[in-house]
Amino acid sequence: MRPLELSKAFTLIEPGPVVLVTTHDGKKNNIMTISWTMVVDFTPVFATTTGPWNHSFAALRKTRECVIAIPTVDILDQVVGIGTCSGADTDKFAKFRLTPVPGRFVRAPLIKECLANIECKVVDMVRKHDIVVLEGVAAYLDAARKERRTVHAVGDGTFVVDGRKFDRRKMMAAKIPPGV
Amino acid sequence: MRPLELSKAFTLIEPGPVVLVTTHDGKKNNIMTISWTMVVDFTPVFATTTGPWNHSFAALRKTRECVIAIPTVDILDQVVGIGTCSGADTDKFAKFRLTPVPGRFVRAPLIKECLANIECKVVDMVRKHDIVVLEGVAAYLDAARKERRTVHAVGDGTFVVDGRKFDRRKMMAAKIPPGV
Repeated sequence: MRPLELSKAFTLIEPGPVVLVTTHDGKKNNIMTISWTMVVDFTPVFATTTGPWNHSFAALRKTRECVIAIPTVDILDQVVGIGTCSGADTDKFAKFRLTPVPGRFVRAPLIKECLANIECKVVDMVRKHDIVVLEGVAAYLDAARKERRTVHAVGDGTFVVDGRKFDRRKMMAAKIPPGV
Repeated sequence: MRPLELSKAFTLIEPGPVVLVTTHDGKKNNIMTISWTMVVDFTPVFATTTGPWNHSFAALRKTRECVIAIPTVDILDQVVGIGTCSGADTDKFAKFRLTPVPGRFVRAPLIKECLANIECKVVDMVRKHDIVVLEGVAAYLDAARKERRTVHAVGDGTFVVDGRKFDRRKMMAAKIPPGV
């Protein structure tokens, strides 16, 4: 897992994959599966929807830190499993055999088995809409791995995996920010 | 284009596709290409990031209405083209040969050539973060069309098309809201 330029980190979230969000509440690690995220700024700033119904929310609010990890299709069943149990009574790293890796700027762990990880600080909590605004402070990519297809939740219990890629870089040249 | 139950409309946005957002400023229609969206509630409520740098923003702010249209891969070049010119000097429906269709609750038009359309009202504008919160008030799906693969922007000028689908409905049964 090598450092990835922060200027490229938004490209991990912009395609809309299911992500894992880790927290550390001062005593233990936790993970939640989140599909409701978006980019807010290239710098990068992200938004996600979460609230007290997620056990991780208390740690997120208290520590104002998390890691967004990007899983690929080979661990889809772990991703779904993480989303259907609670950190209140489950050590999800142990149960789903995932490896926590220390980050540099936050106590929430990176996940070794993921394609990429973004260390994040909470910038703001828009409680009226349960929107949390996050700033990415460091990013990592496992550039050596073969499986790079991420997964998109439909919301009905089905998931769509990344398919064919189209290159429109020439058409979009004027719109692509520097360093991407 | 037949009505789609509102309880299912969030499943159009949750996978994270590139969308087209139409507005009507009282005089004319416009379209913008948006990749920064997320679901905020199943009811459905959505968030998107936009601001004064988009010509459509003035109409969105004034009318507090829009349509989110979901394009598929067959019109990718039109989607990219719409995102690289401005409604300030371009009639995008004419230029990109798209057909505006009247909605029921908003003056912003549906787009006939899209897989699905969601009529939306603006619920809130979180100006501090340029986040607009939208409530879907009617949804439509072109269930008869063959091409249903949506497109995900990476942000570097490349796009990933929907690939293989995985069914995890049994594992997720307890998490799927009613009516989906």
